[in-house]
Amino acid sequence: MQFHHHGYVSGDPRVQPAAGIGLDRPAELPDEVDVLVVGAGPAGMIAAAQLSQFPEIHTRIVDRRDGRLAIGQADGIQARSVETFQAFGFAGRIAEEAYRITEMCFWHPDPAAPSRIVRGERPPDDPAGISEFPHLIVNQARVLDYFAEFMAHSPSRRAPDYGYELRGLERTDDGDHPVTVTLVRTAGERAGEEKVVRARYVLGADGARSRVREAMGCTMAGTSAMHAWGVMDVLAVTDFPDIRLKCAISAEHGNILLIPREGGHLFRMYVDLGEVTPEDHHAIRATTIDQIVARADAILHPYTLDVKDVAWHSVYEVGHRLTDRFDDVLPDEVGTRSPRVFIAGDACHTHSAKAGQGMNVSMQDGFNLAWKLGYVLSGRSPESLLATYSAERQVVAQALIDFDKQWSTLMAGRPGEVDPAEVAAFYVRTTEFLFGFMTQYAPSMVVAEPTHQALAAGFPVGKRFRSVPVVRVADANPLHLGHQHRADGRWRVYAFADDGAPAPGSALVRWAEWMAEGDDSPVRAHTPSGEAMDALLDVKAVLQQGHADVELTDVPALFQPRTGPFDLVDYEKVFAADPAEDAFDARGVDRGGCVVVVRPDQYVAGVFPLDATAELAAFFRQHLLVRG
Amino acid sequence: MQFHHHGYVSGDPRVQPAAGIGLDRPAELPDEVDVLVVGAGPAGMIAAAQLSQFPEIHTRIVDRRDGRLAIGQADGIQARSVETFQAFGFAGRIAEEAYRITEMCFWHPDPAAPSRIVRGERPPDDPAGISEFPHLIVNQARVLDYFAEFMAHSPSRRAPDYGYELRGLERTDDGDHPVTVTLVRTAGERAGEEKVVRARYVLGADGARSRVREAMGCTMAGTSAMHAWGVMDVLAVTDFPDIRLKCAISAEHGNILLIPREGGHLFRMYVDLGEVTPEDHHAIRATTIDQIVARADAILHPYTLDVKDVAWHSVYEVGHRLTDRFDDVLPDEVGTRSPRVFIAGDACHTHSAKAGQGMNVSMQDGFNLAWKLGYVLSGRSPESLLATYSAERQVVAQALIDFDKQWSTLMAGRPGEVDPAEVAAFYVRTTEFLFGFMTQYAPSMVVAEPTHQALAAGFPVGKRFRSVPVVRVADANPLHLGHQHRADGRWRVYAFADDGAPAPGSALVRWAEWMAEGDDSPVRAHTPSGEAMDALLDVKAVLQQGHADVELTDVPALFQPRTGPFDLVDYEKVFAADPAEDAFDARGVDRGGCVVVVRPDQYVAGVFPLDATAELAAFFRQHLLVRG
Ligand SMILES: Cc1cc2nc3c(=O)[nH]c(=O)nc-3n(C[C@H](O)[C@H](O)[C@H](O)COP(=O)(O)OP(=O)(O)OC[C@H]3O[C@@H](n4cnc5c(N)ncnc54)[C@H](O)[C@@H]3O)c2cc1C
Ligand SMILES: Cc1cc2nc3c(=O)[nH]c(=O)nc-3n(C[C@H](O)[C@H](O)[C@H](O)COP(=O)(O)OP(=O)(O)OC[C@H]3O[C@@H](n4cnc5c(N)ncnc54)[C@H](O)[C@@H]3O)c2cc1C
Repeated sequence: MQFHHHGYVSGDPRVQPAAGIGLDRPAELPDEVDVLVVGAGPAGMIAAAQLSQFPEIHTRIVDRRDGRLAIGQADGIQARSVETFQAFGFAGRIAEEAYRITEMCFWHPDPAAPSRIVRGERPPDDPAGISEFPHLIVNQARVLDYFAEFMAHSPSRRAPDYGYELRGLERTDDGDHPVTVTLVRTAGERAGEEKVVRARYVLGADGARSRVREAMGCTMAGTSAMHAWGVMDVLAVTDFPDIRLKCAISAEHGNILLIPREGGHLFRMYVDLGEVTPEDHHAIRATTIDQIVARADAILHPYTLDVKDVAWHSVYEVGHRLTDRFDDVLPDEVGTRSPRVFIAGDACHTHSAKAGQGMNVSMQDGFNLAWKLGYVLSGRSPESLLATYSAERQVVAQALIDFDKQWSTLMAGRPGEVDPAEVAAFYVRTTEFLFGFMTQYAPSMVVAEPTHQALAAGFPVGKRFRSVPVVRVADANPLHLGHQHRADGRWRVYAFADDGAPAPGSALVRWAEWMAEGDDSPVRAHTPSGEAMDALLDVKAVLQQGHADVELTDVPALFQPRTGPFDLVDYEKVFAADPAEDAFDARGVDRGGCVVVVRPDQYVAGVFPLDATAELAAFFRQHLLVRG
Repeated sequence: MQFHHHGYVSGDPRVQPAAGIGLDRPAELPDEVDVLVVGAGPAGMIAAAQLSQFPEIHTRIVDRRDGRLAIGQADGIQARSVETFQAFGFAGRIAEEAYRITEMCFWHPDPAAPSRIVRGERPPDDPAGISEFPHLIVNQARVLDYFAEFMAHSPSRRAPDYGYELRGLERTDDGDHPVTVTLVRTAGERAGEEKVVRARYVLGADGARSRVREAMGCTMAGTSAMHAWGVMDVLAVTDFPDIRLKCAISAEHGNILLIPREGGHLFRMYVDLGEVTPEDHHAIRATTIDQIVARADAILHPYTLDVKDVAWHSVYEVGHRLTDRFDDVLPDEVGTRSPRVFIAGDACHTHSAKAGQGMNVSMQDGFNLAWKLGYVLSGRSPESLLATYSAERQVVAQALIDFDKQWSTLMAGRPGEVDPAEVAAFYVRTTEFLFGFMTQYAPSMVVAEPTHQALAAGFPVGKRFRSVPVVRVADANPLHLGHQHRADGRWRVYAFADDGAPAPGSALVRWAEWMAEGDDSPVRAHTPSGEAMDALLDVKAVLQQGHADVELTDVPALFQPRTGPFDLVDYEKVFAADPAEDAFDARGVDRGGCVVVVRPDQYVAGVFPLDATAELAAFFRQHLLVRG
């Protein structure tokens, strides 16, 4: 965490200085905004949180709820989401209060007495150690709380505008604010009152029954059959021995997915209520909590379940559905105009809750779009950047639906139909997907061709940057390189040094000279004039030697830029290998060095040789505007 | 973190339910209180924070400041303090915003050109890995903020009463509230107004010039000579290469202790201004910031220091002084009456700032006293417990003064007088002291004789419980055993199992039966009736086998007690060895098992064989009252 460089900060350094709209943010929802986010669920909140780091942009986020979400909905947090929370500064705190999954336990009918369940496989949750972040369970409401705190502490001093429901959306295509949204107040004294807001851009993060999607004329394709689950968050006394482990229980009487919850006592059970068809007209929703409990009790036989308190329950019907597009550009308009309205999260894709993906994928949608909007609206990138959102996220959503179908079929199988060992094996095999690390964006204006992938095999282009331990030279602190990537909207450029660096004439030094001085240097070409050298591209060096063998005076000034009103030196951009886990070995980085470019949403955008300066410059020119 | 067991907690689980005084805490300072803490520095705040976990006790904390401390004073946080913060729930957060010391660097005159300094030794800060907690630097103000937050979230909903200065204190020895304190308002509209508060107990945590100490008639013995330091927290540009490392710089022109500060830019320099005598009449205090900067610049030669902003500075004169006692019981009264007035922190001991001990030792003073006051006032322990405070902390203070004299002499030595390698070696040799782990309380009513120390050599009786990794059986979570010890005022009783456990008839099972049912069981004898079985003694088991080899149904009910209004099972008291670091091997615990008793302030109170039930019972009877 860096602070004090604009003068002493006496209080919580997490509260950033107010700027832009944060200096006099209107309390009432104004008539015109730059971005209107509809829906304060995970997709909308992360988008608004990311945009709150662009205080020159006036973003508002509305929700028809009259206040924060109190309870219920999703609770599974993949390691990729925890990694994302790290960038938003709350990974540690949310992990502290969450349940952590380290193993999963499979129960099935006792072959000798099939009416009784017995314990089967017990695989570790992350057998390969694919992330340094944990897999957590915590209520969606708390995730939203932390994003709300981040926004409140951001330069924009943002807070959601609760109690507004979207009723209509129209794209007028004229003027600066071509999208007109009609809202109605849902709460308070002025309930029922209408409010019209004109926006440059609108993000519909308004959930499975999205009105924004409807207004955009998207279609939702998928199975018409839905699967129904009775979901309950309960406090109970039971003799079932694995009540504090995530369990898939498959019994003669049906299936349960058991998810222990935060706090040591509460747990969630998804009790399978079977397939439902549209002809059922949602009759399943009449299932009572008593029926759900009775079903669970029967499935757990010979163990018993004595429910003492029901914190929340719901009958949750869900099918596999996917929207045809994530923005308002019709297929025949592609390339002719830029999108103005987007959808994200459940508005685009719905699927079963069993794989615990919903909240996670939704957040990555929002994270993907928000920085792009930030770049376009602040004049750093061309409008064409916005088309990459739908292109990138549509593929992810399709993969999710495909995966979920497979997963649901396996999990819903009657005993005897599927081999329990096969279920467990599938679970282990698909960890990378379940943890959220399988996403790999295809080449585009923001993802380079993987031509030079061999220079850094452990940083696959298009996948999220996998962090690695390093030692910060200036203060000899062992750190995780990736954890220094804050959700501040900046690009990261990691220069992995050649073995001769930092000697004069080494590849690193030559690259740094070009980056600082070269006519076609992206730092010089794209950094807004008057802003700090690292305002757009945060350039860091990773050297091969141990930290005590690096003399900072030998390291190019590019990596020790001046900052703030006092023109102080930033010492936090020079790293050395950690002898305990050498970053070059751990990620297969060539000893000749290379440049790894990482997007604001933590995805690797490209790997380049240190001497391929023209190629690097050309890559940035694809999506960053040249500044005067 | 355990919650939800009293019903669903929708918001931040760190906010505990209000209870006792927290239900209708008077906003104004009342005329009568149970405990009055004078001084909201580190010693007073930790004491008030610990007492806030006893909501049946009305504690108030006053300070003459008109609000929170904004800047300055101490900044060194030993690992022992971070361990303490863990118990108060904010270790992770404060570490995140702090500077972390991992190495120290010694600079001395270049033998070839003595007017220039050169780098010497560079020892690691914790070469032996004596703690899993880091050594931090963060402003005292932030430490106080976190304690304030803890209090605000406690059942007592406590907040400091700022703007009251103590002017007088009298012990009347009659009635329930035998101490009368006269306060004067220092701020606001009612400034100058007098307020008299009668208290059962008073803690003077009012700093080096303590009025409480004066009123108690204590003497401060020590050297009359003081050492003066110019202290400055500055933002600067310098070519000194180790500006982000803790450095002891010894030059022809004097000495500097350099402490990098949180946030990546600020640093503190203690510039040695030499010895001062009472005859100087504090003339040294007239030293200007320009003089301090000029001196620092000269010492750093050939490097230069260009100070851009001075956040804080002070001329700090300090001698080695120690009070004759920590409470109001005169030597000839010892054993005849109990103390009513105490002092803690700088009120008791002053010494140089160089070893970075002041804030840390002061906090341990407050932590030591507060739970004892809590136990006596809530009727759990006899008044005689309070005498152990002065007895225990006086010894620690003496050790601190002795250490500090040695340290100061070494550090203040002119080049040539002391061997730089010797200074570095002393630093490494004394890590345990510097980190705050050297304290070992002598046997008393709350520390048993170390008769059975051999059963657990790694848990020395009288020293703080050194945590060890374990795996929680119920949820397969790898954890640190000691980190589960919250500052909730409870005793911890760790039953390290024999190798036969949990089989029926094993030593662990027999011990657990006695603990649950035995006539002389301390749980039965001392737990207030109507309260949970673990309200006073938090009894946990550590088994020798791996977590998957333990069946919870075989583990005695003592370790899975019922809790809360729904009579739920508490699953968080049964642990297994961590294969990565076996607790029995790591701490030399006998494979026949043993019981390790830990005090509310985290010190090991005793080690007992599993079959020495009478001895264990007798130990608790020494200091806990038998309940009806
Ligand atoms: C009742 C319910 C139970 C669920 N249970 C589970 C579960 O057990 N497990 C699981 O993994 N996932 C569950 N989910 C799904 C999971 O919560 C979603 O995948 C995740 O929340 C998607 O995030 P989102 O931001 O896209 O949408 P949501 O979280 O649905 O957020 C949409 C937001 O938009 C608001 N909104 C909707 N329409 C309008 C409008 N017209 N105007 C203004 N605001 C509007 C809503 O109030 C809501 O706050 C559940 C969802 C719901 C609704
Ligand atoms: C100006 C200053 C600079 C220091 N600089 C350093 C340093 O650079 N490095 C270092 O390690 N240590 C430094 N110290 C010492 C370090 O701050 C202390 O060791 C530590 O704060 C001790 O904690 P404490 O709670 O015992 O006392 P303090 O932190 O001194 O707290 C005492 C509190 O009591 C209040 N108080 C005093 N008298 C009264 C009264 N009559 N009525 C009501 N309230 C009263 C004060 O306002 C204060 O808040 C400094 C102390 C001071 C005062």
